Amino acid sequence: EEVKKLLDLKAQLGDEVVPQKFTLKTPKGTRDYGPQQTALRSSVLEKIIAVFKRHGAETIDTPVFELKEVLTGKYGEDSKLIYDLADQGGEILSLRYDLTVPFARYLAMNKITNIKRYHIAKVYRRDNPAMTKGRYREFFQCDFDIAGQYDPMIPDVECVRVVSEILRSLQLGEFVVKVNHRQLLDGMFEACGVPADKFRSICSAVDKLDKLSWEEVRKEMVEEKGLAVCAADAIGQYVCLSGGIELVDQLLNDEKLKKAKSACVGLEAMKIFLQYCNIYDLQKQVKFDLSLARGLDYYTGIIYEAILLGEEPGDNSSEGIEVGSIAGGGRYDNLVGMFDPRHKNVPCVGVSIGVERIFSVLEARLSAQKLKIRTTEVEIFVASAQKNLLEERMKLCKLLWDADFKVESSYKRNPKLLAQLQYCEESGIPLAAILGESELERGVVKLRDVESRQEVEVARDVLINEIRQRLGTKSA
Amino acid sequence: EEVKKLLDLKAQLGDEVVPQKFTLKTPKGTRDYGPQQTALRSSVLEKIIAVFKRHGAETIDTPVFELKEVLTGKYGEDSKLIYDLADQGGEILSLRYDLTVPFARYLAMNKITNIKRYHIAKVYRRDNPAMTKGRYREFFQCDFDIAGQYDPMIPDVECVRVVSEILRSLQLGEFVVKVNHRQLLDGMFEACGVPADKFRSICSAVDKLDKLSWEEVRKEMVEEKGLAVCAADAIGQYVCLSGGIELVDQLLNDEKLKKAKSACVGLEAMKIFLQYCNIYDLQKQVKFDLSLARGLDYYTGIIYEAILLGEEPGDNSSEGIEVGSIAGGGRYDNLVGMFDPRHKNVPCVGVSIGVERIFSVLEARLSAQKLKIRTTEVEIFVASAQKNLLEERMKLCKLLWDADFKVESSYKRNPKLLAQLQYCEESGIPLAAILGESELERGVVKLRDVESRQEVEVARDVLINEIRQRLGTKSA
Repeated sequence: EEVKKLLDLKAQLGDEVVPQKFTLKTPKGTRDYGPQQTALRSSVLEKIIAVFKRHGAETIDTPVFELKEVLTGKYGEDSKLIYDLADQGGEILSLRYDLTVPFARYLAMNKITNIKRYHIAKVYRRDNPAMTKGRYREFFQCDFDIAGQYDPMIPDVECVRVVSEILRSLQLGEFVVKVNHRQLLDGMFEACGVPADKFRSICSAVDKLDKLSWEEVRKEMVEEKGLAVCAADAIGQYVCLSGGIELVDQLLNDEKLKKAKSACVGLEAMKIFLQYCNIYDLQKQVKFDLSLARGLDYYTGIIYEAILLGEEPGDNSSEGIEVGSIAGGGRYDNLVGMFDPRHKNVPCVGVSIGVERIFSVLEARLSAQKLKIRTTEVEIFVASAQKNLLEERMKLCKLLWDADFKVESSYKRNPKLLAQLQYCEESGIPLAAILGESELERGVVKLRDVESRQEVEVARDVLINEIRQRLGTKSA
Repeated sequence: EEVKKLLDLKAQLGDEVVPQKFTLKTPKGTRDYGPQQTALRSSVLEKIIAVFKRHGAETIDTPVFELKEVLTGKYGEDSKLIYDLADQGGEILSLRYDLTVPFARYLAMNKITNIKRYHIAKVYRRDNPAMTKGRYREFFQCDFDIAGQYDPMIPDVECVRVVSEILRSLQLGEFVVKVNHRQLLDGMFEACGVPADKFRSICSAVDKLDKLSWEEVRKEMVEEKGLAVCAADAIGQYVCLSGGIELVDQLLNDEKLKKAKSACVGLEAMKIFLQYCNIYDLQKQVKFDLSLARGLDYYTGIIYEAILLGEEPGDNSSEGIEVGSIAGGGRYDNLVGMFDPRHKNVPCVGVSIGVERIFSVLEARLSAQKLKIRTTEVEIFVASAQKNLLEERMKLCKLLWDADFKVESSYKRNPKLLAQLQYCEESGIPLAAILGESELERGVVKLRDVESRQEVEVARDVLINEIRQRLGTKSA
């Protein structure tokens, strides 16, 4: 299988190396993740996965590319951002654009009617990268979805609980989860006199309220989208509202909304949702907000978006990069049916955690505090104080690996003691085991606490226990 | 950022769903990994990563695609298997074919002169998929490499120690690690009278000895590659040899080899390597084997390949799929220089763990034993014995999540008790907490051991401790 790879290479290297003619770089909008970045990412993802597992989620994986037709007609005008593969004979393929469409394809193809799964993987968009803002053409998505025919709002509220547990666990500071309901939005548009064929375009105008003022959005509705002034003004009176259950009750008595069936359905659902939020202790974070619209067209029920409220108290860095939306999602009951030959739907609700933004926030925080995180987990460095002790170091490494310790030693025959100890301090390795002629003769090892630089001699036969004890104390 | 995705979709869904016209499938040579497969993969990769970390490795990540020219000229005739991206304006890109070339590009681009890193990621080859044999167009590679200018054979032997620890930790059964040295091979060819320009092609003929007989390989050398009969026969006398240090000593005294400088260099290196193997307790697995050649042209020193020796003792399944090579690697000192504008080399040695083969072996073993692995880690299922207890179940879930337990409950308002208990048994959830009116009144919870079906009543105020204790006993 691995035969005949990289042919001609040796030939090229034979006499003179072929000159490097191209710029040495990663493709536009992509980057390598070095050990520091990978370590940070792993620690963040570990915490997120722990929350997913606490809620009983499984995980699946799908190919990085799909048949192009699987993605066709799913992303509207953003389809131009899809990466296509070259036609090299055979199927026409595209790189995945998100994890939701492959998930829906997976459910339909395997006739799965209920599953609770998370999927963390990279997706691809030929967007104009704004890398200073942390926007890339290759980036991680981290999705948690519950598919299945269940009773109203029970899985929906669990998704918000999951977001809340994740944001707390990552200690990202204060946050709010705005919630709204697509049927309430539709009912509100109807009540305000928006023609049905304008619901989606007016909805995406409302979605801009997090970036534009009401005046600007109103202008877009009236001038660009041809909405009647009175309809726009009626919408303006609703989208400024936000609150809790009391607002739901108020709107249930609103004369205009009462007449729109879809508004009542949405409000009743929202009431149940907010009651469940109280049970899950989410009432302080969750805010019913009529201006929340969410961009995606496929939502059919509850929608939500978690927003970070700036730096947490106690952080003195005044820079504080703009973060905003850090997670979002909602219910999409009709997407799976698009893939099923008989259009059988599987109701779904899910949330996408904005892990790239979380990485950016945490990287900025580390760099503001001039902190580095460890990129290895080495517990003991085996050092030698004199020359010609390589084999003795190797023997000790073997002994310690056998005892399941994480161990490193220099790959040089005769490294300098000072260089070895400096390496330990720079890498944050807690312990060093130092060998010298005299220690070997007396059957002891010099054990050094790297941070305090204190050294003690430990007899070989109690070495493993001594190390285990010291590491136990360190980690506690 | 997420504005305007998936436009038109709702419009399409509006009246009638657009009929699905294409076959619902993943691209040729790819597949989805369901929860069972993902769980198995995760558990295997976790064990492998634990070994990498025990040896102090960091991890990095690189983009799934590279500039096409980065891959050009690295894979010889296999270049036709590279997936290209469509030219959509901008750079010309290809999907990565392995992790070694991106690693070399990463080192050169970032001027890194020493690092010990592992990288686990998918790679892409437009090969004819033999999916029954576990060969796919998208598959995992799992590489561990040590880059840096060090003393001879010290990092090299650690790579073999890493392989050995991994195969033991995965309990894959007996294995042997064949080792050889490229300079010894070159010296042997020279001593046998092979012209220098035929070294690589004769080397790849030798590489086929694991699949073909010597007679067939000899025929290829003589008839296809035009080697003199006497040279082929001379090679034949060497490639049947295998052994330990005693064989190295024997060959160091071989009249023909003595005259080839490169053979002596290789043999001296092999001697040091085998001595280090003794220190790392690898002497039983490692076998010096002159027929090992390895396909890749870029190797410059030690080469090795780990081979599984069939089913482990005690396994009764007589099927036992053919496994063979399960890891391989070697030293490649000149690859990084190909990317450096000044051709500065960084010596590297590494090993690639054949994780796809490992997955296949373990999947076959599970299926032969009719075993399933758990796909979630749920510890407690919160059930209700009567109707209208949804909110009580939710309260208990919240309490248990807050205490960091992994908890599930039905998403239906009024699930049947039997269905809930069956789900627990099928999913292997160890405990069920059952709520009923009577329990609620008396401030207790019925705790059920799912396996034994025994139930006890536990007071609410000691519930968390009781669960913690029971789970502790279970996992111990």
